[in-house]
Amino acid sequence: MFDRVYIAEAKQRVGEQVTIAGWVVRTRDLAKIKFIVMRDRTGEIQVTVKNLDLYPKDGLGREDVITVTGVTLQSKIANAGVEFFPDGIEVVNKSKQPLPVDIAETSQSELETRLNWRFLDFRAPQTRAIFTIQNRLLATFRGWLTENGYMEIQNPCIISSASEGGADLFRLPYFEKEAFLAQSPQLYKQMCAISFEKVFTVTPVWRAEKFNTPTHLNEIRQMDIEQAFADDETVMKVLEKILVHMLDDVKEKCSEELKTLGRNLVVPKLPFKRVTYTEAIEMLQKAGEQIVWGDDFTKPQERKMMELVGEQAFFLKDWPAAQKAFYSMPYKEKPEVVHAFDCIYGGIEISSGTQRIHIPELLRERISKKGLHPENFETYIEAFAYGAPPHAGWSIGLERLTMIVTGKDNIRECCMFPRDRERLIP
Amino acid sequence: MFDRVYIAEAKQRVGEQVTIAGWVVRTRDLAKIKFIVMRDRTGEIQVTVKNLDLYPKDGLGREDVITVTGVTLQSKIANAGVEFFPDGIEVVNKSKQPLPVDIAETSQSELETRLNWRFLDFRAPQTRAIFTIQNRLLATFRGWLTENGYMEIQNPCIISSASEGGADLFRLPYFEKEAFLAQSPQLYKQMCAISFEKVFTVTPVWRAEKFNTPTHLNEIRQMDIEQAFADDETVMKVLEKILVHMLDDVKEKCSEELKTLGRNLVVPKLPFKRVTYTEAIEMLQKAGEQIVWGDDFTKPQERKMMELVGEQAFFLKDWPAAQKAFYSMPYKEKPEVVHAFDCIYGGIEISSGTQRIHIPELLRERISKKGLHPENFETYIEAFAYGAPPHAGWSIGLERLTMIVTGKDNIRECCMFPRDRERLIP
Repeated sequence: MFDRVYIAEAKQRVGEQVTIAGWVVRTRDLAKIKFIVMRDRTGEIQVTVKNLDLYPKDGLGREDVITVTGVTLQSKIANAGVEFFPDGIEVVNKSKQPLPVDIAETSQSELETRLNWRFLDFRAPQTRAIFTIQNRLLATFRGWLTENGYMEIQNPCIISSASEGGADLFRLPYFEKEAFLAQSPQLYKQMCAISFEKVFTVTPVWRAEKFNTPTHLNEIRQMDIEQAFADDETVMKVLEKILVHMLDDVKEKCSEELKTLGRNLVVPKLPFKRVTYTEAIEMLQKAGEQIVWGDDFTKPQERKMMELVGEQAFFLKDWPAAQKAFYSMPYKEKPEVVHAFDCIYGGIEISSGTQRIHIPELLRERISKKGLHPENFETYIEAFAYGAPPHAGWSIGLERLTMIVTGKDNIRECCMFPRDRERLIP
Repeated sequence: MFDRVYIAEAKQRVGEQVTIAGWVVRTRDLAKIKFIVMRDRTGEIQVTVKNLDLYPKDGLGREDVITVTGVTLQSKIANAGVEFFPDGIEVVNKSKQPLPVDIAETSQSELETRLNWRFLDFRAPQTRAIFTIQNRLLATFRGWLTENGYMEIQNPCIISSASEGGADLFRLPYFEKEAFLAQSPQLYKQMCAISFEKVFTVTPVWRAEKFNTPTHLNEIRQMDIEQAFADDETVMKVLEKILVHMLDDVKEKCSEELKTLGRNLVVPKLPFKRVTYTEAIEMLQKAGEQIVWGDDFTKPQERKMMELVGEQAFFLKDWPAAQKAFYSMPYKEKPEVVHAFDCIYGGIEISSGTQRIHIPELLRERISKKGLHPENFETYIEAFAYGAPPHAGWSIGLERLTMIVTGKDNIRECCMFPRDRERLIP
């Protein structure tokens, strides 16, 4: 149907007749000559119209879809060093005018307006840059794990009971039963890991949290691994390696996009420093923070800690049991501390993980200690009764990681179609 | 923690002391000598215990988790050509006995029982083979599209209204509103394609269909592409190419798994034959089938058609408008026929696609013709008002494709954690 070449290719094929297709970015009218800057997914080019008979009678507006047949020639005037001289211009589909959202280089529109018109906002250079980077992060994540023998699993999204104790779940009627949207693939990735050994998933998860903050969404995507014959240290090694690999890859392959975002991405060095929870508390206390052993860190304290540790990325490990999920493996000699870790990157927690309890009796004991009822978790516990090896895993939030890499303050910028307490459209 | 090598590697490192870890498949006791067949994710090995002091005092049961330190030596007796001679055996975690499900080479358990104990069933060779193949299909799908410039998008799963007219949706309360689980990423992939040009998604979708058949699930995963400046023929070419690529890859990299499943995979030749709907009706009528122009094909008719066409895979194109969604682009001179196609592979429809309508007025007209109300689709229609290029796309069901490739009759075999009218667990 469309025997077109991409603009990036047309720029290379100087002197050859080709057809390009795309959107009108802007036009300029100098009486005897007209310029059209047009865009496709590979870039922009200036179309120089000297024969005004070729120019559409009704004019051209921003975002009109056109095809242009002609030749690329070297140019001393145009920024790109080339111009495109048309033999024919065809209007494929007109755009309504004016556009409801500003998609120029620096968008002037409010985030709310941009999200309302997300399909147009996708055409703004900054937005394109964010999602090109997100796509790269994801492709590298999957590629590395697949190459390294991890199997991608398909965990269910509709589940019959709460996996982690259960507040803030979305409920739905499921035929004659009641069901929930999964807030985590936890049980499922564990069930897969105790058979397949090395698994990963990228999956939507939902939390019905009522607060509406710049860093929370009700539907996010988690990137998880789970691994058998592994403890917390084993999977921390995987995490730091894959994170550095993802960031290196973004730095190399998305340099244009980082430039568009004005972002100087610093890739942390391997290995990441391991700081114990107890050391962190002491550091913060020395620095004058009001915090005692057993407390969780506030967001400002996480950032403070980054300064004190003096590293772009580090692990915070050996947490108090009370701060972590019931399935976290306790230290043998010190059961009030568990094999759990957070990874702090750019002053924000981007991942947390644990070695899981693989022994049914210990799991029952720890569930009771949390004030929960083991009988409500029997399906979960039973999964470890038939030869479960020690195993561990972690989870990274895709949108949150994208925020840090792209330097955005609002997670909605980093989700194509964000869902929050107010927003269900588009 | 576990300084173990995989069994496949241990088999290569003949004469070297290593530690292997895994599950007890079976044991054999010959009074003065004991054999343990053990398994990890890379294969099985026979452990030959001559010094019975090393053998665990309480014995070993199937699926017990053990680590064994010792050396691999060439063997004339063992099937694999090597045996493993231990210096030490450690029991990591005992399994309950007996196992509730048979996980031997050819599982004797009913599908229902296997699904109830899915985490154990994952250890059965046939089940492992199915999901290894599924994983390969998916990795190849993503890999090819990423290499060819398609961007993976993240469509929302919770939506505010029905995308395709709307029966059979799961509803859920969403704070103060009512929402639905997406039955398709249709609108979202279109919104992305009209900006990013080439996109794909692998996404869960839900249909609240009440019937419970061997080929239906209420939660499946769709593999979709959507492409701008494309018509139906453009994306049919992508579909046949990627499908053959995926099948070639499975044939090459999963030959062991295909053998386990007793499957001789025949990869169709490119290009696939294009048969128009009208030709198909005539063929079937000549073969004595009761069918008239305008009817949909029954499943037996789809299989019959495969015999008549004489191809493993082919496209069935140019459908009556009444059989396809309202957004299907009509032929200009013959608006009762639309630019829509199904791909039939192995006698089953595995994918369908269309060129979409990108012109708002035409979309309104076609919605009305279907007896639907354009005012209910204004968000959808409005997305094409600001410079939408012609575009087209298709969708493949991951579980259904896995069924055909692995030769299974029940789609539940090809879904890790199937959700049907009755099943929400595990």
